[in-house]
Amino acid sequence: MLKKSIVYDYNNVLSDRIKSPIGISIEEINSYTEKTALIHKKISERRKKGELPFYELPYKKEDVKLIKNTAATLQKELGQDFENLLVIGIGGSSLGGIALLKALTHPFYNLLSGEVRKTPRVFYLENIDADEIAGLFDILNPEKTVVNIISKSGTTAEPVANFLVVQRFMTERLGKEEFSKRVVVTTDPKKGELRKIARDSGFKTLDIPEGVGGRFSVLSSVGLFPAWIAGIDIDALLEGATFMDKLCKTDDLHHNPAYMNAVIHYHLHTRKGVNIAVLMPYSNALSTIADWYRQLLAESLGKQYALSGEIVYAGQTPVKATGVIDQHSQVQLYREGPFDKLITILSVDNLKNFLNIPALYQEYDGISYLGGHTINELLNAEKKATVLALIKSGRPVIEITVPEINPYTLGQLLFFYEVQTIFGGYLYNVNSLDQPGVEAGKHYTYGMLGRKGYEERMEEVKRFPKRDEKFTIKGKK
Amino acid sequence: MLKKSIVYDYNNVLSDRIKSPIGISIEEINSYTEKTALIHKKISERRKKGELPFYELPYKKEDVKLIKNTAATLQKELGQDFENLLVIGIGGSSLGGIALLKALTHPFYNLLSGEVRKTPRVFYLENIDADEIAGLFDILNPEKTVVNIISKSGTTAEPVANFLVVQRFMTERLGKEEFSKRVVVTTDPKKGELRKIARDSGFKTLDIPEGVGGRFSVLSSVGLFPAWIAGIDIDALLEGATFMDKLCKTDDLHHNPAYMNAVIHYHLHTRKGVNIAVLMPYSNALSTIADWYRQLLAESLGKQYALSGEIVYAGQTPVKATGVIDQHSQVQLYREGPFDKLITILSVDNLKNFLNIPALYQEYDGISYLGGHTINELLNAEKKATVLALIKSGRPVIEITVPEINPYTLGQLLFFYEVQTIFGGYLYNVNSLDQPGVEAGKHYTYGMLGRKGYEERMEEVKRFPKRDEKFTIKGKK
Repeated sequence: MLKKSIVYDYNNVLSDRIKSPIGISIEEINSYTEKTALIHKKISERRKKGELPFYELPYKKEDVKLIKNTAATLQKELGQDFENLLVIGIGGSSLGGIALLKALTHPFYNLLSGEVRKTPRVFYLENIDADEIAGLFDILNPEKTVVNIISKSGTTAEPVANFLVVQRFMTERLGKEEFSKRVVVTTDPKKGELRKIARDSGFKTLDIPEGVGGRFSVLSSVGLFPAWIAGIDIDALLEGATFMDKLCKTDDLHHNPAYMNAVIHYHLHTRKGVNIAVLMPYSNALSTIADWYRQLLAESLGKQYALSGEIVYAGQTPVKATGVIDQHSQVQLYREGPFDKLITILSVDNLKNFLNIPALYQEYDGISYLGGHTINELLNAEKKATVLALIKSGRPVIEITVPEINPYTLGQLLFFYEVQTIFGGYLYNVNSLDQPGVEAGKHYTYGMLGRKGYEERMEEVKRFPKRDEKFTIKGKK
Repeated sequence: MLKKSIVYDYNNVLSDRIKSPIGISIEEINSYTEKTALIHKKISERRKKGELPFYELPYKKEDVKLIKNTAATLQKELGQDFENLLVIGIGGSSLGGIALLKALTHPFYNLLSGEVRKTPRVFYLENIDADEIAGLFDILNPEKTVVNIISKSGTTAEPVANFLVVQRFMTERLGKEEFSKRVVVTTDPKKGELRKIARDSGFKTLDIPEGVGGRFSVLSSVGLFPAWIAGIDIDALLEGATFMDKLCKTDDLHHNPAYMNAVIHYHLHTRKGVNIAVLMPYSNALSTIADWYRQLLAESLGKQYALSGEIVYAGQTPVKATGVIDQHSQVQLYREGPFDKLITILSVDNLKNFLNIPALYQEYDGISYLGGHTINELLNAEKKATVLALIKSGRPVIEITVPEINPYTLGQLLFFYEVQTIFGGYLYNVNSLDQPGVEAGKHYTYGMLGRKGYEERMEEVKRFPKRDEKFTIKGKK
């Protein structure tokens, strides 16, 4: 495993280098020097007081031991019967784990034969979609399935509802005792209904450390347990995160990639109207990192109120794209549309495989030039060409390069974005750890389903104006 | 199969109904009445002249016959050996087919056993990602695989390069003759390298009708052949598209859902600064429709130049979200962030499955309210709650409801968005059928790979300023 640093490159946002109405000057960047030092101090103090516990996740050796022991117990108890892991979770409970698995396992992991795969298949049940769930039941044998339900609060409606449905499906076939052996609950160490249920029912448990919110939890048992089950080297993952933590311990903006990235995003948004932040990995394996990042950025910085109480309606909109696929979908807009985007190109120096393009059909000019190159060269050329085409059109581009896709570099990348987000929260002066905007929807749902204490919300739902058919259009048949 | 109309509902964008800085008044909508009639006339005339041939795709019975015959020939020639279809394509050649398959086959289609599935597994190779391709080779047996390469021009670098690599992989095992039997080329009926190669090599061929661009090609053999192989009723799909075509033949804005949707998007973008269009299907099966839509909107309307020659930098940025998953990721931002989004909620009246949530753990208030409801009720309550929470915060919402996910309703939906896009092109006064912004990147790639005639582009690449290490940050190790 190549244990090298990721490289953060902001050359192509600088007005000295790109001709753009939304370039940034070095002076503009340097205007954040003092503020950076100030915020760094605040973060360091909060961290010391234990108010930012996600920072300490790379150092929690005891939690890693518990994860490995839990996996070993399951393997001992179930042996060959541990063929599938079904993870039930949503948002912060699923996006990080999915990103790790996509990046660090075989691209068709669940389709490999058991002999080749060697570790259990892993499925994520996120949505409350009856067709999806029924589909899962068609392919999962309860006898051979372990369920890992993840919910920080222990009451999140979607995973709990899905767990109840899965429990019935499995107990009908297995009985209660065999089912209980196959459940791992990942939740708050003390609080919440799931913790109590796990105690009553004898389910295995893993902890989400206190104060670690869902979207900052990927390096806790939330992401680490499924990753470990799929054979990922979670020690190297945490080692990579540790490396990034050290790198980001400086208050010197020009040596702190996470702070620099936050400053560039913030400045472009608030001073130049760039309200869209695209993350475009040039790698299928890294594509779901962008889904994880979307939540991190959107929920942390998308806030109506500043900490001062002022109404700010903050937040860039994160957009996922995948290179080279989206060259054939989004790049037309990125090059020619409004100057409203900052595009981050995430790419990999060395993939695991090198594939030669054979020199076939040499009589055709439109094809012959490909022969003799590798697929990897083609990918790199297209990536470079896209960056050049974008900057030629005055579109700012940040490039992040990963020397190799492995747990160590992934750990760096995830931690980098977490630190950037915390720092970004201070720039916007918003609370990056809460999500007040999702409460209203939850409460309306409780009201409609008749949860005790939410009767008033049901009344509020009834008071919304009904749909006026005048403003709907449909065909007759 | 329920053959009913989809329902388009724009109640919650109207300033009479939602308190919002970006609501639209009925008067504003009505101000487009004349323009709509004018554009409708133009579209009808161009259509008559054969300049918008995608409109006629639902009526091409001969093409459907050829698709079915080709499938039958393959089944006759290969029998049980036709176990996998590998589709090689990118952008307009892949997104529509992927959307159809995801919507209309089993949610874990490729993981089902052959006896349950009955039709071949289908894989899409889009990216030029060596790890992904090598992974495919681990799971595909060349003897049991049919390759469908799709490229309108016959020279698109990515599918051609991937095809060359796949050809070598398969011929090494099968020999040339057996390989040739297993290839279907979908391309222009007359022009392009792939058409010639198919003729030379005796590959089977399917047509993309002249003048039908990639992103408007889903209802040609591009999307229909893979769909038919996977057992989808493509006749019903085209029947649904025909239904929508008829519905959109009126120039009365208030009865034409596609035109109305274009007007609302355009007006919010150009008059109220709403530069982001979110499409949020509340269904895993419909989620990839949003990927298809992303290309359609971005490439068609994301244009630097108006038809008048004026520089306009047009184009909303389409964003994919999935309900309910993104309630735990994006809705915080959608409710509390800037007023820069129009959100379309796409939902389904009746899923195939209804799943009861069992009344377990009734002693816990945070869980007991779920018991006795169905997963479907929970999904619907959450969708409704999200819409209410959004409009309470003044965020405009369009709702599109599909009575049931089936080929007939899918056909409507796809055609609806195509018509909207064409109409939108006229509102922005841009050419919605070209994509000049992707040429520069292609040419730089050709230059870097040494394609004849692109030497000057290589020189241009060399003239770009090199990366200055001063503006990169990395750690030492």
